[in-house]
Formats: sequence, structure tokens, C-alpha cells
Amino acid sequence: MIFAQAEYEARTARAQAEMARQGFDALLLTTEPEVRYFTGFLTRFWESPTRPWFVIVPRQGRPVAVIPSIGAPLMARGWVTDIRTWRAPDLEDDGITLLVATLRELAGRDGQIATPTGHETHMRLPLSDLDRVRNAVTLVSDGGLMRALRLVKSAPEIAKIRAACAIADRAFARVPEIARAAVGLDQVFRRFQMLCLDEGADWVPYLAGAAEAGGYADVISPAGPEPLCPGDLLMLDTGLVREGYFCDFDRNFSVGPPSAAVADAHATLIAATSAGFDAARPGATAADLFHAMDVVCTGGAGGSDAGRLGHGLGMQLTEWPSLIPADQTVLKPGMVLTLEPGVDLGGGRIMVHEENIVITDEGAEWLSTPRGPDIEVLDG
Amino acid sequence: MIFAQAEYEARTARAQAEMARQGFDALLLTTEPEVRYFTGFLTRFWESPTRPWFVIVPRQGRPVAVIPSIGAPLMARGWVTDIRTWRAPDLEDDGITLLVATLRELAGRDGQIATPTGHETHMRLPLSDLDRVRNAVTLVSDGGLMRALRLVKSAPEIAKIRAACAIADRAFARVPEIARAAVGLDQVFRRFQMLCLDEGADWVPYLAGAAEAGGYADVISPAGPEPLCPGDLLMLDTGLVREGYFCDFDRNFSVGPPSAAVADAHATLIAATSAGFDAARPGATAADLFHAMDVVCTGGAGGSDAGRLGHGLGMQLTEWPSLIPADQTVLKPGMVLTLEPGVDLGGGRIMVHEENIVITDEGAEWLSTPRGPDIEVLDG
Repeated sequence: MIFAQAEYEARTARAQAEMARQGFDALLLTTEPEVRYFTGFLTRFWESPTRPWFVIVPRQGRPVAVIPSIGAPLMARGWVTDIRTWRAPDLEDDGITLLVATLRELAGRDGQIATPTGHETHMRLPLSDLDRVRNAVTLVSDGGLMRALRLVKSAPEIAKIRAACAIADRAFARVPEIARAAVGLDQVFRRFQMLCLDEGADWVPYLAGAAEAGGYADVISPAGPEPLCPGDLLMLDTGLVREGYFCDFDRNFSVGPPSAAVADAHATLIAATSAGFDAARPGATAADLFHAMDVVCTGGAGGSDAGRLGHGLGMQLTEWPSLIPADQTVLKPGMVLTLEPGVDLGGGRIMVHEENIVITDEGAEWLSTPRGPDIEVLDG
Repeated sequence: MIFAQAEYEARTARAQAEMARQGFDALLLTTEPEVRYFTGFLTRFWESPTRPWFVIVPRQGRPVAVIPSIGAPLMARGWVTDIRTWRAPDLEDDGITLLVATLRELAGRDGQIATPTGHETHMRLPLSDLDRVRNAVTLVSDGGLMRALRLVKSAPEIAKIRAACAIADRAFARVPEIARAAVGLDQVFRRFQMLCLDEGADWVPYLAGAAEAGGYADVISPAGPEPLCPGDLLMLDTGLVREGYFCDFDRNFSVGPPSAAVADAHATLIAATSAGFDAARPGATAADLFHAMDVVCTGGAGGSDAGRLGHGLGMQLTEWPSLIPADQTVLKPGMVLTLEPGVDLGGGRIMVHEENIVITDEGAEWLSTPRGPDIEVLDG
């Protein structure tokens, strides 16, 4: 396990208190972050879509794992002691009979079994199996229980995110080693991931970016072989992982001296990020942070097609809340957020900037080392 | 798009022929490989769980995309022309009204809308939204349509998988540069991922492995800082990606000279892999390959808790079929498989070996360069 047992005990106790309040007899979890949150089960094996994995939080006592036998040794290294397995894949009954029996044992035949059903969640099992489960037991919405739990990070979690951010900080500082005019963007992507690993990332699940003259068209396309050219605006946005926790921030670079438009846009983005940081404190809402940044970027026009100006961060690259006008989530100490303003450079070109922060008792703290107003210049 | 438009046209035509045969009015897809299969939409942005993405294959004509507006520029670079967007995340209606309207338009109000519901699939949208969709339109099982389509790879797909395997081959050949006694396993993991990138991987979604004296306890745990020691058996198992296609194979190494038990076990695994390869031809079943390997490894005892001795491979690290006794999938030319036998070394220790092959008209071809019977020895 990544954390001491007390961390998992505290998470489980908080969940069980809320389960009691809402009248839930068990909590059923099926996705990687949900399973890991309660058990410490950390593995890249989730990359395989073959096998379903289930964890049940009962009204009291430790979580119960209902998992493929291949995962039992790793699960047993944690604090979960009730580990029930089947030899997956089983084409006829891939754990469903075992799961239903366990749910009925823990929650009773007519118990209310809560599961996350809202925004940013899904059920990671085949639909036909999900229907079998729902025909056998009563699944209900968890009422945002998991969202509320995971929104606020513990001190040990924040330390992990801070460590991931520090690794990315060091990798970004080395970008001049790998990126200059005539180097292909795909090669920059490969070399940047190598820098992240060299600086201590366990793996690099996410790298996006772009390089185009005077601004980029979008921020989610894969890199092509086209070489960097003088005048290109290069952006690299990474979500690297250290001990199961993500950072998620980006840096922009000008290949050769920037145009006045690019230099101004970068300074605007830094000002917007600072405005978001200044607005970030307990009691403010996610929407407040959106507006604080949007007024700097657009004069208050209401954002862009990207849809939001930041989001939560932790065990996943993106988590609740969303920095959008509609998200009235009230910020609390321990929430980790990205600030991600964007500006329109005209002609279908944009620039985005991103930093990571944590809400504290008094305001906020930077987790990434905030970039100054001047865009970094690479050899052109 | 990774492939020429003709590839996507052929995929869509095959789907539509089967849809007509089964009486489906539309096919609804929600996961990364399913969306990419029909549209060519390749992005690492799926790492973010926030936004749902939908593609609908109608009875005739091109697929229709119902996606967050942030993805429209990338989707428009492909062959899909009917791209309907909403500004996600929308906390009230995250694309569901748009999706339902599009489904009704394409399939009719009472149309049969098929979606994958079986083994190795899931629906990637919140359960509450899935229920809204199912209350508005008729979702039915696709009857294994997507499985059947994706099981058989086209020549361009096989070329991509072959390229991924060649990159891993080259990275494995360089392991002596990074792994020897006294180097921490976590550092070996980082350095090996760097080798994969250096040799041409676009990214490295999967790396598992272990290093323990005389065999390892499991194959899915993350790497710890413990240094390699003489006598350790080191295994590295990678699923790297090039242009959206995976390889998935492993290599074992002895730190210093191997014990007789380890040397014998390695030779047995290579013999088992060869037996699997020899059994691999059109008309044989997935179960036949299991038995061909199992008889070498265990004398025919029926495998282990790992559950299978190989699986399909392609756009995902693992795909159908499973090499298990129950899987009667009949092999056809173009199916890409891993052969992954394991042996029990006693005392809770195992060794596994893995290669990648493609079924041809006459038999099979190696995609990874098959390892010989002698285990590779690292400086001890």
C-alpha cells in the first residue's frame, strides 16, 4: 500500500458514517480509483479490460474484495483481509454469482447497495453482467458520496501530488535539451516523456500538446512528425504519475523569439492564472474561480469550447469539480485543483496555460512552480 | 487518421452488413477502442474520465459522432462529417439529450440500437445517464458484433502491431544497459520505459514485472526500490503503443547465473510457447492453444490462477479471445494473439513467458522475435 493503514481506515470510516446517514447497507465500487481509494490496490494491470474487479464497503468493518484470483497476492499485501476470488476470465459467470452472494451477505437480501452513478463515473463491467447484478440486488445512487470523499485530499495525498508536480517541474526545466527548431514534434513528445521518467515519474499516462505557428488549433491531438519551426508556439501538457497520484500542468515555449501577440497572450494567461489563485480560498466556489480567470482572458465572455478553466486532480488526471459557471462546489482546505485558462489568438488558434494548486485554511498554495509572464524561448 | 479512409469504410461496411443480418437499426459505441475503430479518433485525452464520447453507426452511411466540442477539431481531421457537439462538462445534461435525439433520428423512435454488452466491454458513461438513454430508446446487445469485427485484424493493423513488437524487441535487447545487481527495480522500470520511448514507442501504457530470488510471487505488482540481487529472476512485461496499436510480451533475465531450476523452467516455457505456436492455425480453437501449452507446462493439469495462457491483442493490451479451456473461438487468418505460458517454481513462485503471433492462411507468424531456450543473464 502507498499509505499507512490509518489512511485507509479513515477513508472507510468517513464512507461508513455517510452510508449510515444516507441509509446505505453497502457501497459497491468497480473502477480503478474507487478500488484503490479503499484498498491501496495499485497496479497498471487495469490497462487490461478483460477482468472486472469489485470492492464492497460494508456498514462496518474493512472493505471486502471480490476479485480475479490473479490479483489476490497483491490485494493481500494491503489491509483488506476478506478477499474472495474467482478464476477469471470465466466466460459463463465472470464473478457475478460471487459478487451477488457477497452483496447479499453484507447488505442483506433487501439492502440498499449504493454505487457512484453521477458525473465523471461509470460502471466498469459488461452491461449484461450489470443487469444481472441489478436483477439480483437493489443498486442505488451513492448520492455523491464518493465524489465528496475524494474531493478533499488528505495531507499524505497532497504530498504525493506535490511530488508528482515537482517531477514535472524538473522535466519542464529540461525541455531546452530536447526541443528546438528542426526536431519533430513526435520526437519532442518521446523525449519529454523520457525526461519525466528520468526525473522520477513512475509512468506517464498523459502527454498532450501541439506546435504551430503563432498558436495551436487544439490541445488533444497526437503528435505528428512535422519539425518545429521558428515562430512555432510549442505546448506540452503532462499528467505523470508518482505512487499513484497525478500532476496535470503545461508549459508553453516559443521556438525563436515570440511575436508580440504570443508574448502578450502568455502574459495574459499568467495574469489569469494569478487571478484564479487569488480567488482560491475556502468558501469560494468552482464557479468563482472560473469567473476570476475568464474576466482576465475574455473580459467575462464565458469561456470557450474547451468547456472549463480547470478541474480537480488526484488519483486521476481530472476529477471533480469543474471550473465552469454552473459548478457551485464550495472549495474546502485539501481540494487540489488545476487552473487552466485559455485565450483565443484568432484564426482558430488558441493558447492555454495550466498550474496546480491546493486549497489551504487561508487561501491556496502552488503545487507546481508557477510560471512567470515571459514565455520561455527555445533555439529557433 | 492512422489508416487510409478505405480501412474505415471497410470496417463500417462489415458492421452494417452484420447489423442488417441481425436487424439492428444503429450501433452505439462509448469506449476508446470502439470509437477509434470506426472514426480513427486517436488521442490520449481519454485518460480524463470527465467527458463521455459517443459514436453511432447507422444502417448506412458514415458513422456519426456525438462528442464534446473540445474534440471536434480532431474528429474533423478524419472521415466523419456528421459531428454533433455539446460544451462538456454540462452538469445538467452531459450530451444525453443530444445523443437520444441523434439515436432517434438515425434509428427511428422504436429502432433497435445495439451496443456491446458482453465480456471485456463496458459502457463508458455515468449509470444515471445510461438509464436515461435506456428509458428513451431501446438498447439491445450487439450479439458479439464488435467482438467479431475486432477479432480479425486487417493487414494495415497487423503492420502496426508488428511495428510495436519490433520496438519492444529493440528495447528488450538493451536491458543489459540498465539492469544489473544493485539497481533498484523501480529504476529498472523507469529506464526500461525510457528505452521503449527511445526506440520509437509513442507511449508506454503498460509495464509490469518483478524481480525475486528464484522466481516471482505475482506479475501485476508495482516496482519497489529493492535492488536487484544475484540469483534474482527479473521479468519485464510491456504493452507499448505505436500509432494506437499495442504489443504485449515479456522477457525474463537471470541476475548472475541462473539456478538449474530457473534455467529448466525457462526452457520449458519456450517449449510451451513453441507448442502453442505449432498449434496455431486457422480452424484450431483458442482452447486448443491452451491445451498445447498446458500439457508442456503442467502435463495437462489445467493452468493456474492467472486464468489463461494468452489472449488477443491489438488496439488494447488485451482483447478477446482468451486461451482457456472454455474458449471455443475458432482461429482465423488475421487474428493476433499472445502466447503466455506459466510454470510453478514452488514456494509460491512462478515464471511466465510471452510472445506475440498472428494467424496466417497456413499457420502462424511471430510478431515478436521469439526468445530461445536459454535465459538471458545480466551482470550479477
